[in-house]
Amino acid sequence: MAFTGRRIKGLVAATFTPMTSRSDINLPVIQKYVEYLADEQNVRNIFVNGTTGEGMSLSVQERKTLTEEWIKYSRGKMDNVIVHVGCLSLADSKDLAAHASSCGADGISAIAPSFLKPSNPDALVMHLKEVAAAASNLPFYYYHIPNLTGVKYQMYDLMGKMQKHIPSFRGVKFTDVNLMDYSLCLHEYKTFEVLYGVDEQLLGALACGAHGAVGSTYNYLGSTTNKMLSAFEKGDLHKAQEIQNTVQKFLLFVFDMGWGLPEFKDIMSLYSGIDMGPARLPLRSSLQSEHHNTVKSELKRMDLL
Amino acid sequence: MAFTGRRIKGLVAATFTPMTSRSDINLPVIQKYVEYLADEQNVRNIFVNGTTGEGMSLSVQERKTLTEEWIKYSRGKMDNVIVHVGCLSLADSKDLAAHASSCGADGISAIAPSFLKPSNPDALVMHLKEVAAAASNLPFYYYHIPNLTGVKYQMYDLMGKMQKHIPSFRGVKFTDVNLMDYSLCLHEYKTFEVLYGVDEQLLGALACGAHGAVGSTYNYLGSTTNKMLSAFEKGDLHKAQEIQNTVQKFLLFVFDMGWGLPEFKDIMSLYSGIDMGPARLPLRSSLQSEHHNTVKSELKRMDLL
Amino acid sequence: MAFTGRRIKGLVAATFTPMTSRSDINLPVIQKYVEYLADEQNVRNIFVNGTTGEGMSLSVQERKTLTEEWIKYSRGKMDNVIVHVGCLSLADSKDLAAHASSCGADGISAIAPSFLKPSNPDALVMHLKEVAAAASNLPFYYYHIPNLTGVKYQMYDLMGKMQKHIPSFRGVKFTDVNLMDYSLCLHEYKTFEVLYGVDEQLLGALACGAHGAVGSTYNYLGSTTNKMLSAFEKGDLHKAQEIQNTVQKFLLFVFDMGWGLPEFKDIMSLYSGIDMGPARLPLRSSLQSEHHNTVKSELKRMDLL
Amino acid sequence: MAFTGRRIKGLVAATFTPMTSRSDINLPVIQKYVEYLADEQNVRNIFVNGTTGEGMSLSVQERKTLTEEWIKYSRGKMDNVIVHVGCLSLADSKDLAAHASSCGADGISAIAPSFLKPSNPDALVMHLKEVAAAASNLPFYYYHIPNLTGVKYQMYDLMGKMQKHIPSFRGVKFTDVNLMDYSLCLHEYKTFEVLYGVDEQLLGALACGAHGAVGSTYNYLGSTTNKMLSAFEKGDLHKAQEIQNTVQKFLLFVFDMGWGLPEFKDIMSLYSGIDMGPARLPLRSSLQSEHHNTVKSELKRMDLL
Repeated sequence: MAFTGRRIKGLVAATFTPMTSRSDINLPVIQKYVEYLADEQNVRNIFVNGTTGEGMSLSVQERKTLTEEWIKYSRGKMDNVIVHVGCLSLADSKDLAAHASSCGADGISAIAPSFLKPSNPDALVMHLKEVAAAASNLPFYYYHIPNLTGVKYQMYDLMGKMQKHIPSFRGVKFTDVNLMDYSLCLHEYKTFEVLYGVDEQLLGALACGAHGAVGSTYNYLGSTTNKMLSAFEKGDLHKAQEIQNTVQKFLLFVFDMGWGLPEFKDIMSLYSGIDMGPARLPLRSSLQSEHHNTVKSELKRMDLL
Repeated sequence: MAFTGRRIKGLVAATFTPMTSRSDINLPVIQKYVEYLADEQNVRNIFVNGTTGEGMSLSVQERKTLTEEWIKYSRGKMDNVIVHVGCLSLADSKDLAAHASSCGADGISAIAPSFLKPSNPDALVMHLKEVAAAASNLPFYYYHIPNLTGVKYQMYDLMGKMQKHIPSFRGVKFTDVNLMDYSLCLHEYKTFEVLYGVDEQLLGALACGAHGAVGSTYNYLGSTTNKMLSAFEKGDLHKAQEIQNTVQKFLLFVFDMGWGLPEFKDIMSLYSGIDMGPARLPLRSSLQSEHHNTVKSELKRMDLL
Repeated sequence: MAFTGRRIKGLVAATFTPMTSRSDINLPVIQKYVEYLADEQNVRNIFVNGTTGEGMSLSVQERKTLTEEWIKYSRGKMDNVIVHVGCLSLADSKDLAAHASSCGADGISAIAPSFLKPSNPDALVMHLKEVAAAASNLPFYYYHIPNLTGVKYQMYDLMGKMQKHIPSFRGVKFTDVNLMDYSLCLHEYKTFEVLYGVDEQLLGALACGAHGAVGSTYNYLGSTTNKMLSAFEKGDLHKAQEIQNTVQKFLLFVFDMGWGLPEFKDIMSLYSGIDMGPARLPLRSSLQSEHHNTVKSELKRMDLL
Repeated sequence: MAFTGRRIKGLVAATFTPMTSRSDINLPVIQKYVEYLADEQNVRNIFVNGTTGEGMSLSVQERKTLTEEWIKYSRGKMDNVIVHVGCLSLADSKDLAAHASSCGADGISAIAPSFLKPSNPDALVMHLKEVAAAASNLPFYYYHIPNLTGVKYQMYDLMGKMQKHIPSFRGVKFTDVNLMDYSLCLHEYKTFEVLYGVDEQLLGALACGAHGAVGSTYNYLGSTTNKMLSAFEKGDLHKAQEIQNTVQKFLLFVFDMGWGLPEFKDIMSLYSGIDMGPARLPLRSSLQSEHHNTVKSELKRMDLL
């Protein structure tokens, strides 16, 4: 089987998992969410049950149910639904991979186990090979996010090993600021996909040759970021810089507040008008209702709303 | 309910999970393993499905099955079977806690979620409170191992919060080299248990007042370590130092080889003669059969075998 | 005094300090070194006594002597000689700053003290303000290199404080992979200089708007990197990527050998034919004479020699 | 030359450097300071120009002047004056070592260079060997403080190398929480000194066999800590624990305030009544006059004043 003709272009939204006020998964919201991404944000690819989606905080059964819903409502709306199936337990990952395959996902992805970390790169590849083999008809993407996992292998080297040992290996979701390793991967593995995952410096990655990007800000700033992609492609670097800078200033505001994932989930609700619900424990948002107007006026001030 | 009269004294072995050569759980070994600990190592408490037991690499169902077996064969042999129920998913942890309670475990323990880390100490306590509540009749131990989880809260402070919010809170498995925080916990929370978890410096913890210890070396060096406890109790500090030093020199040999958890599992097999099987992916042992004699002669040279 | 009309354009070589075989400073080499940079590498700015120059391993007197020599031979050859005057001791830094001013340096720069780290950003600015005041007629550049100093303040914030409190503040040598903070600085402080310092991902910084760069590879790959700058300016992104990739592959070779600063010094000697001598203790090169041909053929294979 | 008969017993105060309100060194205070340590704290050894003394923030000349004063006023009062001569520059360290020797210091000590870090343990030993050789008649102590330097070599291994290559090697100031490495050093190098440097867990180190300790709290809690040493020696572990716990609770108060070195300097002034002056930049104290009473009542509440 050859996936080489297929390329994800442009943005992939790393979706939040809609929850009820009691932090149960809230399936009825998904249809509206998919429509919002497609129609308002012009985003045609999603990455579900990943970090943004609190995938690791969900049970295996919840992840399966969510996968089914995302795939169902994405038909005709999304070009690619990539399902994150990484778990600390290899058995669980294989179970999720097989399920994703059976539901018609367009690809699977897995993170490195981060509690008991791989003994070495070869052990990681053996682990990933088993995950991939459980959905051998689907493109497999390794999810590289060293700051969260503590697994910091060089991707240039690891891609070679995965290419050799994993028949369905298709690429990497590369969530790291190191653009040397990123560029080396892009240039050495030209028929593979190396999707960039650090939204706040996507412009730097574009200069290196990035063809696609996965991130959580594309849930609400997808349309804005698409304008940056267009400007860059047309050679209007100045405009691309202006847009990237606007996104950065918004993120600066968020980071300076000390906010992170649970607050970004609230921001998505505020921005889209779709209720994402709270993040699940051990996350807890410190964004209070009195912050709502500040967030909105910040977004407006930057012409992002 | 009050647990205050109850104290774990001495050593708790953090058990390995016996596996087949294909890394499936190998239940038939458990009975022999329990007998070995009780009869050969004089260890009367076990901590199952923890880090040493690769608990986070097992599926929820595997953990339940293992829990049942450990409890079954520990009857009359062990004073305490503490079941680790920590998971990245709160729902899974609650499920495991309720199961442990229904099987007759003597206590449960949970680690902090380490991929999406707690937003703050209060969020962690809310998380743990829900876990504990699913087995409210069992003593609850927080499992503090900051080097592995990256969750580095001060225990002195966190114990206060847990005491206040978690009715079944009973203590902490304290796996960190920081003896100031450890001592402060011991002295402030005198009716709670603060089990020390860094085997290679247990003697330092004893001087601070440690009354119990949980660790993986007690699987095979339990008997040796018990001699250190006796010597210390009798005031024979010199002898206690000699024993601790012997254990340290063996660990130095292991660490200098670059070995870790999967190799310790092999060492347990070599030492006890009970086949623990290999570690599960993403771990892979680099201890080869040509190392067997080296390990054994090293142990013999130190009078540990 | 206003420096605002002045801008460093293009590359700044962070020079090595030539040494004798006994690691004494080797002044006679400097004239040839300057000529090499100007004539062979087309580099018109130098940054002396910095990290590459082992400035912190030199005595105050050695740094003064070197400064005098660099300035003397740079006349008519270099547009800017920036002298690094950072020390752990504020008194030493002030002494060096005053000396640089008296010798006719074009600017000074200082790193954050990294052993006893600044208590907070304001304390750092108070420290830097005193350094800058000792050479108040010279543009002052803060040298941001968080991976080496452990001082990780956000530059976007710190530039604001420096602009307010340090009259001669002129910019930052920004040696970090974080392009969000870098871009924010470039766009917020448009009349200041924000020189990029991570050679292996300069192309990413160019896309963010970088106007200048300081680094050690420009000692021998200045001419090559200048071609990348030209290609980028002309909009030939493909060519710029090819050049950046070539540089990255050479650095990958070096890093994969486990090499660092002392070996880069050897590589400069090999490349330029000018004997830089060994690095000073506590650095020790592991590049042996048997590696010379490997390094050269690697450079040739990449068309870098 | 053989130093083996000589052992530092008990406490060594790592002295603060008295400064004027303008952060110049304040020599006239030193005589009173030495008398205070000897008479009020019963401390008979000092370690000068180290971390607590802001040695790295002083110029070489200031360090020499201070060394002379400390030695002059310590005659007849102190058993040992150990002079820290570590610098980033080897030349400066050799200069200081020779000076310490010429003034009659009882020993010298040097930290690892921490900006450009040693290429490997052998390079560090080559560096230290040159420092020691500049004062070959004085016992040489390596100053191990990995959390501040980032140089994290195993001391068990490094002591072997230093013993082999440095004739005047006498021991290590071991400032780390890792008691396994500490114990291994104590037991393997029985004729050398391994002074413990983490005041807040000294009791743990005593259990491992510590014979001496260097730290900054001994400036004002020397007398208190001496009582802990006595209790421990007499086998009254309970009393030793009570004293250690009291010290820990005071340190907990300080750390919870977010305080560090500059505030400890203020505390020394408050406690002793001797004006130490402020810390030098880049340090800045956040202990304000409104905190004075809090600190004092905290000390009184714990019976430490």
